[in-house]
Amino acid sequence: MKQIGIGLLGFGTVGAGVVDGLRRNREVLADRLGFELVLRRMADVDLDRDRGVHVDRGVLTRDAREVIRDPSVDIVVELIGGTGVARTLVTEALQAGKPVVTANKKLLAEHGEELFALAEAKGLDLSFGASVGGGIPIIRVLREGLVGNRVQRLLGILNGTCNYILTRMEQEGAAFDTVLQAAQQAGYAEADPGLDIDGFDTAHKAVILASLAYGFHVPMSGVTVEGIRGLSGVDVQYARELGYRIKLLAVIRRDADEIEVRVHPTLVPVDHMLASVNQVFNAVMVRCDLTGDTLYYGRGAGRDPTASTVIADLADVARSLASGQPRRLCSASPGRAPRLRPLREITCHYYVRLNVLDKPGSLGIFTGILGRHGVSISAVTQRAVQKEGGHVPVVVLTHAAREAELDAALAEIHAAGVVGELPKKLRILEE
Amino acid sequence: MKQIGIGLLGFGTVGAGVVDGLRRNREVLADRLGFELVLRRMADVDLDRDRGVHVDRGVLTRDAREVIRDPSVDIVVELIGGTGVARTLVTEALQAGKPVVTANKKLLAEHGEELFALAEAKGLDLSFGASVGGGIPIIRVLREGLVGNRVQRLLGILNGTCNYILTRMEQEGAAFDTVLQAAQQAGYAEADPGLDIDGFDTAHKAVILASLAYGFHVPMSGVTVEGIRGLSGVDVQYARELGYRIKLLAVIRRDADEIEVRVHPTLVPVDHMLASVNQVFNAVMVRCDLTGDTLYYGRGAGRDPTASTVIADLADVARSLASGQPRRLCSASPGRAPRLRPLREITCHYYVRLNVLDKPGSLGIFTGILGRHGVSISAVTQRAVQKEGGHVPVVVLTHAAREAELDAALAEIHAAGVVGELPKKLRILEE
Repeated sequence: MKQIGIGLLGFGTVGAGVVDGLRRNREVLADRLGFELVLRRMADVDLDRDRGVHVDRGVLTRDAREVIRDPSVDIVVELIGGTGVARTLVTEALQAGKPVVTANKKLLAEHGEELFALAEAKGLDLSFGASVGGGIPIIRVLREGLVGNRVQRLLGILNGTCNYILTRMEQEGAAFDTVLQAAQQAGYAEADPGLDIDGFDTAHKAVILASLAYGFHVPMSGVTVEGIRGLSGVDVQYARELGYRIKLLAVIRRDADEIEVRVHPTLVPVDHMLASVNQVFNAVMVRCDLTGDTLYYGRGAGRDPTASTVIADLADVARSLASGQPRRLCSASPGRAPRLRPLREITCHYYVRLNVLDKPGSLGIFTGILGRHGVSISAVTQRAVQKEGGHVPVVVLTHAAREAELDAALAEIHAAGVVGELPKKLRILEE
Repeated sequence: MKQIGIGLLGFGTVGAGVVDGLRRNREVLADRLGFELVLRRMADVDLDRDRGVHVDRGVLTRDAREVIRDPSVDIVVELIGGTGVARTLVTEALQAGKPVVTANKKLLAEHGEELFALAEAKGLDLSFGASVGGGIPIIRVLREGLVGNRVQRLLGILNGTCNYILTRMEQEGAAFDTVLQAAQQAGYAEADPGLDIDGFDTAHKAVILASLAYGFHVPMSGVTVEGIRGLSGVDVQYARELGYRIKLLAVIRRDADEIEVRVHPTLVPVDHMLASVNQVFNAVMVRCDLTGDTLYYGRGAGRDPTASTVIADLADVARSLASGQPRRLCSASPGRAPRLRPLREITCHYYVRLNVLDKPGSLGIFTGILGRHGVSISAVTQRAVQKEGGHVPVVVLTHAAREAELDAALAEIHAAGVVGELPKKLRILEE
């Protein structure tokens, strides 16, 4: 049976998963593909640590370039992560004429434009299915399954750590810090959780999805990023009472010649499919002109789910190689880049929580200010349950309003002295 | 720009959707593919009816064979439906050396073995993405995205008409017949609804999914099919009170050397993702050894969603043709066919509703009979709300039990004269 040689860069968790998956399912893979995927070389700086899978000594090396140069290696898999050595090695592999499979979202979000251009110039596949959504084949779906569609909107729950924290806050009424600590102890959050909870991991994935959906490179600088750090349990509980769950969403939208790419905590109606995505699970909902809404759900991280998607990418690239094709999918030729709409220009429904001075006329003053800024109110809930130094919490839901107008109104309300502190604002997912 | 010629057989709803989709998104398609998909010939018996899309007279013909034989047609799309002329024409297209795209689930469920063997012998693609799940790219996901996995279980809500009826029964407390009539008036159900509500449409799709997941042809005769006709609103409401929603599920499972393929109304826990799939939407949940559970959700029928998937299949086949390959995916070589487990041998949790004679000792008699058959009870709810001729409705949930044992117990309970009629049995989705 024909063999396609694999070279792996990085023997970490996912690397071990790929080795294990290729071995465990060797027979079904060969059966389905009509050829064998064979691990030929594998590089890591640490060759001694036990990863729970056996790799022959002769296959292992500390020198990544040995893997790239090895003539028996047909496809290079980059599982090192980060944007330093990974960027250099992916570049070298492509320059050496070898197609590359990578799971590195940060690398593609920050240097994708240069790397895809190189792959294009060399006529090689640069596959990145595992960079977004772990075991969910969302990249494949966007590139192939929805190829006949225009993407109108894309919503993603793309970070398992954040979703785990939000789920526990909602279900247990627990505080952010308490749940974060528990998540760290359970291994669901890093000791340094910033990349996850401040939204940057989600933003990296949003950049990849937006670039793919709209056929031009979206820069990280064009993405609004607000994480869940310091999200108040009070807002989670009010949202719940109002029929919403708070999720960290990536929101990608196009209308006319403008695109929005933003990441922020969002109130999702409880009967929306995305509200049912709990714990560490991820999901992406795509709205297209032909298919309408479709949703893709699964484990967004972890050794085996990520390995599953790396192996699917390997199978694609290997199918092309086995039939003598250098690559299968071309990149869309970049059209005229649409404008990235700045946050202040977006239109959204909002949840606003204000601590209003408990005296006659306060409510009239702030509703008057909102009205003068064109922000109309769809619901007001006054909470008389607790007084904090003469302030009463009031929660307002607005109709669609411009972000800049709402911000101006909230600043004016604060300046008018009728609220205890700057009002808390969250965005609501509209249909 | 290079062109790939399309020949369409059948100018019905989906045919019109394909023509319209190819035209509306011509630019993005050409941009993404690097070549053009061009409709060259199209056949239908009725050339005069207005389908809302324009096709040049010169493209249209009443003779399907003209389409197949036309040298400018590179790919044949079969959208006629049924197993008569469609079977003949797909066979002739493959024999003429042309790859085929079809959305015809009945054809593949009943004659797939013969047609795939012919495609294999000819080295041609026979693509069938739109045969299951409409706009949901589940076939692509199974063939490619999950290629590195062994499929352990597959659950599907695959018929929009049934799901619409069940959703309305649950949400409105309405009776089956009432909702069916409303669905027929709204155009969500056919005048002759048997194919949908008796479960055969779902079974056709289950056969295609099971065959794909396990690499051998599952015959329709091996599938247990129970539809939703005559499902009692009482059971829908009891299920709801117990924390379940009733869905018509396709359940496909493998353990060891046996496979189960069954279609029946099933109690799904409300917090399960599949319970959130309402109205005409479809969804498939796949459990694999590497990825774990993933779910795919969207519109399972309709002009544009189905056209979207047909166009995605066309793009795949055309990509191969454009690069000089006859086809891309091979069929898995059929391994040793596993045994199809008959219904009486399955193990499941059950919901049983009995109308028990309202006199001392009745409860003891039927629980005793269940116990002697090895069926243990996890919950009993006695409903004293209404008496019907001295009978009280009792709902029993069981632990895992063998179907044959449960049936024997229920027959014995009936024979013992403690229940008014043969008890009603429904299966519960177990994790």
